[in-house]
Amino acid sequence: MKFPDKLDNAAQKNNSLLCIGLDISLASIPAHILKETDPIFAFNKAIIDATGDLVCAYKPNMAFYEALGGYGLDALLKTIEYVPKHIPVILDAKRGDIGNTSAAYAKTVFEIFKADATTVNPYMGFDSIEPFWEYQEKGVFILCLTSNPSARDFQFFGGDHKLYMEVARKTKEWNKFNNLGLVVGATKAESLGEIRNIVDDLPILIPGIGSQGGDLENSVKLGTNKNGGRAIFNVSRAVIYASTEADFAERARNKAKNLRDEINRYRPNVKN
Amino acid sequence: MKFPDKLDNAAQKNNSLLCIGLDISLASIPAHILKETDPIFAFNKAIIDATGDLVCAYKPNMAFYEALGGYGLDALLKTIEYVPKHIPVILDAKRGDIGNTSAAYAKTVFEIFKADATTVNPYMGFDSIEPFWEYQEKGVFILCLTSNPSARDFQFFGGDHKLYMEVARKTKEWNKFNNLGLVVGATKAESLGEIRNIVDDLPILIPGIGSQGGDLENSVKLGTNKNGGRAIFNVSRAVIYASTEADFAERARNKAKNLRDEINRYRPNVKN
Repeated sequence: MKFPDKLDNAAQKNNSLLCIGLDISLASIPAHILKETDPIFAFNKAIIDATGDLVCAYKPNMAFYEALGGYGLDALLKTIEYVPKHIPVILDAKRGDIGNTSAAYAKTVFEIFKADATTVNPYMGFDSIEPFWEYQEKGVFILCLTSNPSARDFQFFGGDHKLYMEVARKTKEWNKFNNLGLVVGATKAESLGEIRNIVDDLPILIPGIGSQGGDLENSVKLGTNKNGGRAIFNVSRAVIYASTEADFAERARNKAKNLRDEINRYRPNVKN
Repeated sequence: MKFPDKLDNAAQKNNSLLCIGLDISLASIPAHILKETDPIFAFNKAIIDATGDLVCAYKPNMAFYEALGGYGLDALLKTIEYVPKHIPVILDAKRGDIGNTSAAYAKTVFEIFKADATTVNPYMGFDSIEPFWEYQEKGVFILCLTSNPSARDFQFFGGDHKLYMEVARKTKEWNKFNNLGLVVGATKAESLGEIRNIVDDLPILIPGIGSQGGDLENSVKLGTNKNGGRAIFNVSRAVIYASTEADFAERARNKAKNLRDEINRYRPNVKN
């Protein structure tokens, strides 16, 4: 099944556009979980068990697992395997390099970690994205307009037609396998509608509505397509570290449920 | 010691601006090495032993080690530890993400792998580079104008003042710790001189003179600073896979020596 179909199915089954970011931090994992043999996997398993009926995707970020060495990467592999098969996993890695090197990165995310989708950086151009794009069943989210304040340093470069608009335009043009998407931060809601107009029905991964303080209502109204879908709202820390006590999984579930429902309230053409 | 000083010392001691890229590929490692317990490390060790007096740096690319899983990353760690202490190691990873995520990547390259320098992608702007930049003794090479054909997709975006020029200008502006550098491909030699003028004495990492067919003579003349230094010419496959037979290390040495000498011939103000 192609990635956009898998995404649509999960979004419909769980009536959700919420994605939970599994951004692990040993400093934030509850003390009783840290005592387990594999605390990272134990933590992720508890979060997935508590939220599996509330999300359209999970998004682990490679950085946090890599920083823990081989042990972190083993826990990442187990986590991805544990996610229910009908829910897509977006392995956030933001890779990009010359062709033969990008091919090695693509092999890592899609064959070793068996992710359903990944994120890539467009700076080096199409041939740096091509090895990911050649996995036609997988999803490839190209960074367009990111949620961090310094996004303005280069993404707004240019005159009226800015760099991020050119990235959106080219992504739409390259999408012949129907497997590309964009990353657009909720902290730039004013530009989301403009980007949605450029890329039509492409999936847009939208981080920034949690700890980063993006504008949820406008991001949902402007970021979804005309059927109120194809937007993936990622929240990481605000959900998974809602509590660092024994009740962390229940609190994560409550936070996730509230976010899912709040997102649904603003989706056009979708029943709540 | 700060990175540019360590680089200058190694370049002077070995009278070399050559960097060897340790881009491992099990398909290209000689059969007799593949029989060893840890063939990746055995291969890199043989290359380092054969070329340690001919280079100013080594540059392993993370992609090729990651793609081999935990075993590849263990071999990368052993390889970096094995490089003689006076020769800097640039761990090519091209990372970049929002602040707390980039911090995890920076920890990985500088604390787990103990590299002397790394490469980063500028697309997300300064706050995505900042966690690397805060390691003031380490070197941070920002992608500017890359060696692949699709570099033109976005790096040439803009009017007369193109995106890659803006990246060079901002990098120079951000360099208050004297630890930043740029990546500029030898396949774009015509732009190297222009970039060198913008960044003055910043180190420039220049890939593309080996298998990618860049213009060596002009890259050296235009890419070095006024003292004929601060440019690092990386060659990967053309050196390390000069032969896949039993004589691979000797052949790699010969190729490296020829390249070092050829680079030196074109350096201004440097004795050969």
